[in-house]
Amino acid sequence: MSADVPEEADEPGPRVVAFGGGHGLYASLSALRRVTSELTAVVTVADDGGSSGRLRGDYGVVPPGDLRMALAALCGDDTWGRTWSQVVQHRFRGEGDLSGHAVGNLLIVALWELLGDTVAGLDWVGRLLGAHGRVLPMASVPLDLVAEVELDGEVSTVRGQVACALTPGRVQAISLVPPDPPACPEAVRAVLDADWIVLGPGSWFTSVLPHLKVPELADAMHRTSARRVVALNLAPQPGETDGFSPQKHLEVLRAHAPSFAVDVVLADTGVDGQREELEKAVVAMGARLVTASVATSDGSPRHDPRRLASVLSEIFHEKR
Amino acid sequence: MSADVPEEADEPGPRVVAFGGGHGLYASLSALRRVTSELTAVVTVADDGGSSGRLRGDYGVVPPGDLRMALAALCGDDTWGRTWSQVVQHRFRGEGDLSGHAVGNLLIVALWELLGDTVAGLDWVGRLLGAHGRVLPMASVPLDLVAEVELDGEVSTVRGQVACALTPGRVQAISLVPPDPPACPEAVRAVLDADWIVLGPGSWFTSVLPHLKVPELADAMHRTSARRVVALNLAPQPGETDGFSPQKHLEVLRAHAPSFAVDVVLADTGVDGQREELEKAVVAMGARLVTASVATSDGSPRHDPRRLASVLSEIFHEKR
Repeated sequence: MSADVPEEADEPGPRVVAFGGGHGLYASLSALRRVTSELTAVVTVADDGGSSGRLRGDYGVVPPGDLRMALAALCGDDTWGRTWSQVVQHRFRGEGDLSGHAVGNLLIVALWELLGDTVAGLDWVGRLLGAHGRVLPMASVPLDLVAEVELDGEVSTVRGQVACALTPGRVQAISLVPPDPPACPEAVRAVLDADWIVLGPGSWFTSVLPHLKVPELADAMHRTSARRVVALNLAPQPGETDGFSPQKHLEVLRAHAPSFAVDVVLADTGVDGQREELEKAVVAMGARLVTASVATSDGSPRHDPRRLASVLSEIFHEKR
Repeated sequence: MSADVPEEADEPGPRVVAFGGGHGLYASLSALRRVTSELTAVVTVADDGGSSGRLRGDYGVVPPGDLRMALAALCGDDTWGRTWSQVVQHRFRGEGDLSGHAVGNLLIVALWELLGDTVAGLDWVGRLLGAHGRVLPMASVPLDLVAEVELDGEVSTVRGQVACALTPGRVQAISLVPPDPPACPEAVRAVLDADWIVLGPGSWFTSVLPHLKVPELADAMHRTSARRVVALNLAPQPGETDGFSPQKHLEVLRAHAPSFAVDVVLADTGVDGQREELEKAVVAMGARLVTASVATSDGSPRHDPRRLASVLSEIFHEKR
């Protein structure tokens, strides 16, 4: 199946915008770079932990970590691109000031300090990496996630991405502080100009749904003539979506963005046991279900970039 | 005078090795890049202060600061080279972990961690900058400077570059710990292959003389068939060479490296008042004196890169 898809897109391909953050977005970009060179990643900016959290606290910048990881996923497929990708992904060891910081996070913040322009700074790192596509933040300001959490029948709120991830309670819904952040104008433009938008895979509450809570961005995702793919996760995520069925993921998506129309829901063939119920939920939201073997062969719940590329290419070219 | 020399060498030119550190080396490289594209900088690695000192302490690496500054001096003369040069020279502000660190220092240390090879790491930063030449450390291990200092008739020793710079006493001689550090093999090779070597300008005791105390490097500087230029400073340096005449600079050079034969001593026309005495000292060491207007026009004791380039070009082509 993967034999059809080259390492990198050899023709421009459809204009695709991928939404997410962290490892999920890394996976979708690793696939999409093989399908199109007209690729834009739109990245969550609500992280407040680790290297990103420290930089956000010290410099008041949007957290750079997920942006860096997306840029690394798009690096040029040559010695130059791979070396600089390794450099930006490298984390300092030891006990000193730098310990735990990813080099790319520092480089991005330095470019922001120097240029005073978030998008221009990211574009420079993209050029450094020979990136196959553009990486943009979903909003122009750092955001806080607020989660509505249920524990032992009581519902409370938890603020901050780290706190949301660590809460023993069950996340039911998320919102953003500030609630009406300015979207990144270039991201809005990319969505309006797109042929396809792809939401997920990724941490559902902390990386996927936040995009739909940025009003200008959600509005563009609603207004665009692009068709919309939701790529489901391969398994529930411990601490975030424990026990969630695929259709439960779709339910919370609808709850967060009732007017967001989906064209295609993509799931791994691993859902076959619950296919009937999932298909019912997908059809009920006006979409169609595509299942394909998109997981890695080693049994871990990770997408295989080639397999994911292959089925996304078929979807974009309406063969599926 | 400067009209003859282009922004960058447009033909290979002589093979030149420049020795120094810090702002002095930045000045000589800013000139030499205009004269030849066959340029190697050999840089002191005894700094123990600031960003370099913290990185050296935390990671046991050679201090990267003077290496970074030399690389920046050689950056490509286009938007790409100038932008990345600004990035590597940028220092983080504020009060956080990163405060005071130069971005290029962090990038160099990350490349060293990743590649495990000092020279390869510097070559990658050189490629990033589109550098017109190569930058190498004088030794493969971090070094400590030890200064013999005279204060009120008493002679004592002071260890560390920062301590040497801050001592209220008068530095009389320097040595290195360890006393027999391994030279960087690529630096030795460059010296042996050179047509010209250029020592100075720069902080005499802490950036210029240390090269002559690395035995393998000093031996190569002695054995090479390259001709040797000593570029004198424009003024004594407060705290390091207060009250030093130009000939006193040559005296301490001879004291540190009695067998180092010099072909040309280059001084600014500002020395004209003491020209006779200087010429006597220069001739006594078997060299000839070239004086030219190499200072900036604003009266500050800094070399003008174009003027310095112009006279160095004349020296290399034996017109002076």
